Amino acid sequence: MLYLEDFYSGTVTEFGSRTVDQDEIIAFAKAFDPQPFHVDIEAAEASNFGGIIASGWHTVSLTCRMFVDNFFNNNSLMGGIGADEVRWLKPVRPGDTLSVRCSVLETRRSKSKPDRGSVHIRLETFDQTGDKVLTFTVTAMLRARPA
Amino acid sequence: MLYLEDFYSGTVTEFGSRTVDQDEIIAFAKAFDPQPFHVDIEAAEASNFGGIIASGWHTVSLTCRMFVDNFFNNNSLMGGIGADEVRWLKPVRPGDTLSVRCSVLETRRSKSKPDRGSVHIRLETFDQTGDKVLTFTVTAMLRARPA
Repeated sequence: MLYLEDFYSGTVTEFGSRTVDQDEIIAFAKAFDPQPFHVDIEAAEASNFGGIIASGWHTVSLTCRMFVDNFFNNNSLMGGIGADEVRWLKPVRPGDTLSVRCSVLETRRSKSKPDRGSVHIRLETFDQTGDKVLTFTVTAMLRARPA
Repeated sequence: MLYLEDFYSGTVTEFGSRTVDQDEIIAFAKAFDPQPFHVDIEAAEASNFGGIIASGWHTVSLTCRMFVDNFFNNNSLMGGIGADEVRWLKPVRPGDTLSVRCSVLETRRSKSKPDRGSVHIRLETFDQTGDKVLTFTVTAMLRARPA
């Protein structure tokens, strides 16, 4: 079990990869983001994007999955606080293979409740060409190691 | 078709609702956020949360669906730019019914490319008790109305 003290600012970890296919892009978007260029092949080809692209929230969710599988698990999480500066930098298309760079930016023990603290982490998601497709940060509250 | 000029800062729209059940909470989390308190009923009951809660990204995605169904469709979108200040304020649990308040904060025509501009929108998601469970903003690039 990892506690607040087990996260160190400056730690950088790389993991993945995950290939995303057209069927799952369309399925996610039909459920959560049914804009034409996410769900309709012909409309997507006629759009600015020239073909189906993944919902930005799908790319975030796939990044979350790699983050949980490879880095953020078996810890003393008390709750997710939030995410900031989500930027979709390049469309993700069927067949793209995504991987992630995860950087611990800061850990901060709570002054008012010293049994816990926050961890601030930067996630950067790349496609198979090395281009960055997504960046964001997440902040979570973790319990400190019991005395 | 809605263009940049069809969005006005100050416009507030409310829509929904959408009830989320335990099976879909678990299915989303198995795919994208397989932490124990999202996917394992017994582990969730023993956790800080006292039962299954939705992945924060599931709540964001459900909010996106209501946004696209009710407000952000049939427009001249050139691309999503990003999202900011995602805050998960209260856990979403099986049976919760979510609704959304959507506020256009600002529209800004590009100085360098006046055929387009950005729209900045605040989304606030509430549960059936009126408590806010999630807030975030999104920024998208839209084409201006052709001359």
